Amino acid sequence: MDKLTRDIRMQCPIPISDYPTVQLAHGGGGMLMHQLITKMFAPAFDNELLRTQHDGAVFEVPRGRMAFSTDSYVVSPLFFPGGDIGSLAVNGTVNDLSMCGARPLYLSVGMILEEGLPMETLWRVVQSMKKAADHAGVALVTGDTKVVDKGKGDGIFINTAGVGVIEHDLRIAPDSVMAGDAILVNGDLARHGITIMASREGLAFESRIDSDCAALNHVVQKLIADGLDIHCLRDLTRGGLASALVEIAEASSLHINIKQTDIPVRDDVHGACEMLGFDPLYVANEGRMAVFLPEDQADRALEIMRGDAEGKGAVKVGSVDSTDSKLVTLTSHIGANRIVDMLSGEQLPRIC
Amino acid sequence: MDKLTRDIRMQCPIPISDYPTVQLAHGGGGMLMHQLITKMFAPAFDNELLRTQHDGAVFEVPRGRMAFSTDSYVVSPLFFPGGDIGSLAVNGTVNDLSMCGARPLYLSVGMILEEGLPMETLWRVVQSMKKAADHAGVALVTGDTKVVDKGKGDGIFINTAGVGVIEHDLRIAPDSVMAGDAILVNGDLARHGITIMASREGLAFESRIDSDCAALNHVVQKLIADGLDIHCLRDLTRGGLASALVEIAEASSLHINIKQTDIPVRDDVHGACEMLGFDPLYVANEGRMAVFLPEDQADRALEIMRGDAEGKGAVKVGSVDSTDSKLVTLTSHIGANRIVDMLSGEQLPRIC
Repeated sequence: MDKLTRDIRMQCPIPISDYPTVQLAHGGGGMLMHQLITKMFAPAFDNELLRTQHDGAVFEVPRGRMAFSTDSYVVSPLFFPGGDIGSLAVNGTVNDLSMCGARPLYLSVGMILEEGLPMETLWRVVQSMKKAADHAGVALVTGDTKVVDKGKGDGIFINTAGVGVIEHDLRIAPDSVMAGDAILVNGDLARHGITIMASREGLAFESRIDSDCAALNHVVQKLIADGLDIHCLRDLTRGGLASALVEIAEASSLHINIKQTDIPVRDDVHGACEMLGFDPLYVANEGRMAVFLPEDQADRALEIMRGDAEGKGAVKVGSVDSTDSKLVTLTSHIGANRIVDMLSGEQLPRIC
Repeated sequence: MDKLTRDIRMQCPIPISDYPTVQLAHGGGGMLMHQLITKMFAPAFDNELLRTQHDGAVFEVPRGRMAFSTDSYVVSPLFFPGGDIGSLAVNGTVNDLSMCGARPLYLSVGMILEEGLPMETLWRVVQSMKKAADHAGVALVTGDTKVVDKGKGDGIFINTAGVGVIEHDLRIAPDSVMAGDAILVNGDLARHGITIMASREGLAFESRIDSDCAALNHVVQKLIADGLDIHCLRDLTRGGLASALVEIAEASSLHINIKQTDIPVRDDVHGACEMLGFDPLYVANEGRMAVFLPEDQADRALEIMRGDAEGKGAVKVGSVDSTDSKLVTLTSHIGANRIVDMLSGEQLPRIC
């Protein structure tokens, strides 16, 4: 046992010697559940709202628009280079709210634990959630824990839902996209999906590939604060850039064109995609988004994005056309155009 | 195959002949997931917010207090007399918001489906959620679907989160409970847990026992609208009346006394509890709550509750004492007092 592992075990607020694993009773509404909540969750996520020990969190909001979103996380494995199910669960919902143009405020946490889950694993995930929440500047204010019998779950599933406030007058939505919009992305694509696949299959590449898992709320807030006329934001999760664009072309009834030479994919990630038979356009990201805004504001937006930790690799990848074809086309390296379709099957299961 | 089953199969918007069961690709971000969302979920839950197909729902709120809550549902079996996982998932979160004194507005739905789940089962659950949401007057405005490999889940797990508005100045919370408060419940206890246990074990009783699963928002809104000085509301789910009172005694630092002769438990439920070795005080309910308010307002509150479909069996079960013992005591049939403790183990796994 290395020192880090020993330290984590020592710090676990439920003594691992007493409860090495999660029991069904940890979700049963009795003493063990009470202990898990009051000793592990409440101190780790501590905030004023959580402290009321009520059925939900109660808070003041200003009059105006709010955003509300949810995602469940079933990623396998639970820990991977660049993140884990905990940071993913926080960042994912922070990003969904950010894509609505909202400033994320509060998150809920619903855990479904499998009986027999090592208590140490739960403790690591809880700490990771806390760290990600602090980094994003959101509070985990209400939650729920269920335990299912061994063999009826897979370690931990986490649902997070979130609420945020919209503090501007933009209408950021797929059907606000307009002809003439530039399409920007905030960095290189396809790392998250490839990282998960490599972890799961035990593949090692020459270079280290980490997930791009990150919270995008700070960079989005900078774009909004600058007064840019943002039409749409979309995170490039399941289905990757391609699926996001296909959905937006459909919702806006406009033609989207992207240029293969402009799409940023690292060489090692490209190589891994080729080896595994994936098209990086369809591979999931967890810290990447597409930004739609008028072409003449693209340079300013890129400048702002590149000034943020989560936008250093920001580039323009395409534009929105005036034709109402509802199609997404890709102009290849040699100048040929092909239609980008929604994937019919599944490329990578359980990547988030 | 009976007519009802045939009708449900015929109406399933994903042709059961093409997709008799849920596939991994139904959660993969591609065409099959798109079909499931646009053909089944979107039309069933249809509302203006859902129609934007965005990463979250955006809505206007008035300035003031809001409540936010979440619960995951892992009940086994999925269908039981008086409800199913779908109605439970809607009513549970509606009730959590109601216990905060909020009027529930919007719910999110996060589904974790197991590969191989019959498509018909999913369709039944979706319809049940829609019906429950309509009855409670809430809209399902945003959601997420994940599919896990066969053997890594158990049919369907559902998370719902919800937001609601607080339209009064009361501070309804455990630490608002005061000495002299009466404790009311809105009907007979322990039916939900016993129903689940009986369904799971294939037990049949002489009389039919249905779950009490119900939405409590309408009866709570009536109590609030009448101007009653409600101090605390608590739904009596996992851990039953006993665990709820123990938590509130602790949070309020006051002594709670309940009278066994006043606690409403149906004779057949009592018999089932004795047979199965359960104490009805600890058995879960899904449509029952405890109401704390000044003793002199108890009669008026009971009158209002009895006038609502979800409060016909409302009675006073106890009161809050001025001593600061933080204990819950039960005065038995013969007048003896015993301490009511939190259950150390788990009485009934996976009842919600």
